[in-house]
Amino acid sequence: MKVAVLLSGGLDSTTALHWAHRHHEVVCALSFDYGSNHAARELACARWQAELLGVPYHEIDLRSISAHLQSALLSGADAIPTADYAEDNLRQTVVPFRNGIFLAIAAGIAESNKAEGIVIAAHGGDHALYPDCREDFMAAMASAISLGTYAGLQILRPFITNTKAEITAIGAALGVDFAHTYSCYCGREQHCGQCATCRERRESFASAGIPDPTEYES
Amino acid sequence: MKVAVLLSGGLDSTTALHWAHRHHEVVCALSFDYGSNHAARELACARWQAELLGVPYHEIDLRSISAHLQSALLSGADAIPTADYAEDNLRQTVVPFRNGIFLAIAAGIAESNKAEGIVIAAHGGDHALYPDCREDFMAAMASAISLGTYAGLQILRPFITNTKAEITAIGAALGVDFAHTYSCYCGREQHCGQCATCRERRESFASAGIPDPTEYES
Repeated sequence: MKVAVLLSGGLDSTTALHWAHRHHEVVCALSFDYGSNHAARELACARWQAELLGVPYHEIDLRSISAHLQSALLSGADAIPTADYAEDNLRQTVVPFRNGIFLAIAAGIAESNKAEGIVIAAHGGDHALYPDCREDFMAAMASAISLGTYAGLQILRPFITNTKAEITAIGAALGVDFAHTYSCYCGREQHCGQCATCRERRESFASAGIPDPTEYES
Repeated sequence: MKVAVLLSGGLDSTTALHWAHRHHEVVCALSFDYGSNHAARELACARWQAELLGVPYHEIDLRSISAHLQSALLSGADAIPTADYAEDNLRQTVVPFRNGIFLAIAAGIAESNKAEGIVIAAHGGDHALYPDCREDFMAAMASAISLGTYAGLQILRPFITNTKAEITAIGAALGVDFAHTYSCYCGREQHCGQCATCRERRESFASAGIPDPTEYES
């Protein structure tokens, strides 16, 4: 199937890109600059991975939207909480309807590129904190995209039943160079090691038994 | 209800803005510059109408997306067919998944502005040619937006059972100044009078029995 892949430059979506490249025909990888603290580091990784595989790479500038969205993720590194995802204050990092916006734009571009599907690295460990990560949202959005396009585009979620540790193992088996992926919400040169995404990243490597190539600040 | 209004600057969405201003609390009007031939004229009207009503107006720059979308609407006035909507060649003017993209972005911004609903001027006369105008798409997208936001945002379609002529009559009753609305796909100073949207505009005034303030080229 011809597919467009949503690629943030993080561990999950990079593995999804390599998975799609192995099993499908990737017409393009799509990244979004929505003005997040970590955009520059993350997008550099996304571009590196797409170029490695010879996949057309498009970086979409959404900063005009972000000016009207409320989120700590768009407000500088100092606003990022260092607690676990479980804690209430993580809700501050939610970017309203982010997955909905990404999927809708991807649908338009995928349809323009004669694709039949969109690959997103949504997974079983995604947080109930984010309404646009939940299964019922994804099913409704998949229906809207299928009905709203001539091609009846599908949303492929190859990792929907996997944990992040399992995705790490799948990526390792696909030969993903994880040193060229970036997860930290703070966006500094090195991963901070303290924010919720850094904690998850470390735990995923540890529980998958895969060596972690990441250099953490602490 | 607090609502965000999708406002193109055309006849339908301008009437929707005035309707929402009468019946709800409009937290913002949202326009999108997606690089269409008629963006400058249309957006000037949108801004004029929002300022008239004292409604916060946000113009979102989506030209970074449009570079990756295929449509005659994004390719200069010469590419615009002059036939009726019924003809096959109008399919060239489809911007893939445009309503899906607009609604998704509006959902993120509406949620950030503590709105409870999004108003879109979709109407009964919208064309089956465009999959993202059809009722089944709208119902699925409404479900996705409700499920994907904390507020459970609703999509309000006050004109879904109306014809364009009826919307024109509703607008006239609301006191809309139609001279400050713009419909033509060609985007010149005056409405061309020949493209499908100009034809529809003329017919709507005529069948509603409302004086048409538009100056057409021919």
